[in-house]
Amino acid sequence: MTLPASVVIGECFARDGLQNEDAFVSTDRKVRFVEAAAEAGFPKIEAASYAHPKYLPQFADTEEVLRRIRRKPGVAYLGLVPNEKGLERCLEHRHKGYGPDAIGTILSASEPHNQANVKRTIAESKAEIEAIGRRALGEGLTMIGGIATSFGCPIQGDVPFQAVADLAAWYADLGAREILFGDTTGVANPVQVEAFFARMRVRVPGVVCIAHFHDTRGTALANCVAALRAGVTHFDASVGGVGGRPKFTEGNYPRIMGFTGNAGTEDLVAMFEEMGVRTGVDRGKLIELGRLAEEILGRELHSHVVKTGLVTH
Amino acid sequence: MTLPASVVIGECFARDGLQNEDAFVSTDRKVRFVEAAAEAGFPKIEAASYAHPKYLPQFADTEEVLRRIRRKPGVAYLGLVPNEKGLERCLEHRHKGYGPDAIGTILSASEPHNQANVKRTIAESKAEIEAIGRRALGEGLTMIGGIATSFGCPIQGDVPFQAVADLAAWYADLGAREILFGDTTGVANPVQVEAFFARMRVRVPGVVCIAHFHDTRGTALANCVAALRAGVTHFDASVGGVGGRPKFTEGNYPRIMGFTGNAGTEDLVAMFEEMGVRTGVDRGKLIELGRLAEEILGRELHSHVVKTGLVTH
Repeated sequence: MTLPASVVIGECFARDGLQNEDAFVSTDRKVRFVEAAAEAGFPKIEAASYAHPKYLPQFADTEEVLRRIRRKPGVAYLGLVPNEKGLERCLEHRHKGYGPDAIGTILSASEPHNQANVKRTIAESKAEIEAIGRRALGEGLTMIGGIATSFGCPIQGDVPFQAVADLAAWYADLGAREILFGDTTGVANPVQVEAFFARMRVRVPGVVCIAHFHDTRGTALANCVAALRAGVTHFDASVGGVGGRPKFTEGNYPRIMGFTGNAGTEDLVAMFEEMGVRTGVDRGKLIELGRLAEEILGRELHSHVVKTGLVTH
Repeated sequence: MTLPASVVIGECFARDGLQNEDAFVSTDRKVRFVEAAAEAGFPKIEAASYAHPKYLPQFADTEEVLRRIRRKPGVAYLGLVPNEKGLERCLEHRHKGYGPDAIGTILSASEPHNQANVKRTIAESKAEIEAIGRRALGEGLTMIGGIATSFGCPIQGDVPFQAVADLAAWYADLGAREILFGDTTGVANPVQVEAFFARMRVRVPGVVCIAHFHDTRGTALANCVAALRAGVTHFDASVGGVGGRPKFTEGNYPRIMGFTGNAGTEDLVAMFEEMGVRTGVDRGKLIELGRLAEEILGRELHSHVVKTGLVTH
């Protein structure tokens, strides 16, 4: 097996991870988590969401979080920008000196999913993201273009590769440096994933492909290995495996029951390191970070290695 | 990716799965589970343990279970035979007309693990298994030779491939038709697994290699895919992901904290089927089987697809 020697894991707990949490996590705790994640060695950390606080009150304190975190040199702090209003706030923070280093945008490759998720047609989402992208890039921000339901959709079913590839090419033309392919409801399988990324990397050779898997059906780690085999070097994961779509979208499409969280960071990092693939993350500190996440959310989360310990030989 | 078109999943819930359960599961329920597993399409089902009831009271009713299950033609019902006394009971049941079709034996590739687990040196275990094997094969039973800690040991650390290969060759000489390679404490990783089975299949070309992974660190499904890539076609798994080493061995070596169960059958079958690898298992009935296991044990188990549902497109 010839695999990349090292990978970049984007830590998503403080944004994607928390967007599904009912109870407000205090600003202190968010700041503590983001700083501990940087300390553990993550080079990319989701730290902010510009979703409207009416829909996601969890992120009403995004400005305060960004203002307070001690930045570690070399770490990219990311913020999700769902719309132009969000970009206004993001740029305001940037002008005050504490905005994110990169912004994430999102649309779905499935028309009905996009409409259920963001109440826009794909065409409307593209127009808005083009406006966001042009302005953000003009301000010197890096753009990460997200494509939800890249591997299948709970409403539409199969999502043609071509539809995803067209959006990826459009993002690349727009100037996105990285494109995130989301397995939004955890329907991907390793055969599909390896073939998908082998083709996609040829279609958008100039950009970084990010594999963003959900562990809805227990396949997130197997899918990460499949993506790695296809040469993917960038992965999203969330400490404790928490996250998933926000509660406010639940009425909009068939309910995906139960746990739909992200690939769990602790188990993913531990597995990659055991495979000889370097992540740059200190595994001892990562286990502490997993415990901190459980303390913050006040419950046992989905990581295995936090409970069972690392392989010690 | 060229993968085997079909695989055989050995369902372990009623033996390996239950050996770690404190509360006695009634004979009725064991019988119901084994019959439902056959009905769902599993071609191989662990149904009996000949461990002494003093150590594993869970299996005090093994004779009754075997006597009562309605056998489905084409299904192999397995019994674990840990020692010669166990074989006596097994053969007694066979002579009465309701013994298992195949027996499993077990020793560890790690000397200290074998001593902690079965209170024998590896040499002593080999001598006993040779006696068991000769007699069982003479009686027309099929033998499945198990090798624990094939991928690493919590006491010794690394386990040399050569040590495992020597035991595999010895089992093959003894007449074992299948050899089970156990990742007893879930330390294996996909790179190791693929290389391991690629080499092992060349070393014991005449026998079937069974991949038996534990999900201690969340890597069981990723390891199954790696084994599949190396041409392995036989896998063990347990509905609900339950199982692991019995409680009575706990004082004997460093405690592996938390959940150490088997690869979860429901998620494994669902993933393989999504990959286009046929298991012969009816997925709808498998979900019902997962619910039955939860009803039997009175708690939520580790399967994802039982909670979230199958991919429906």
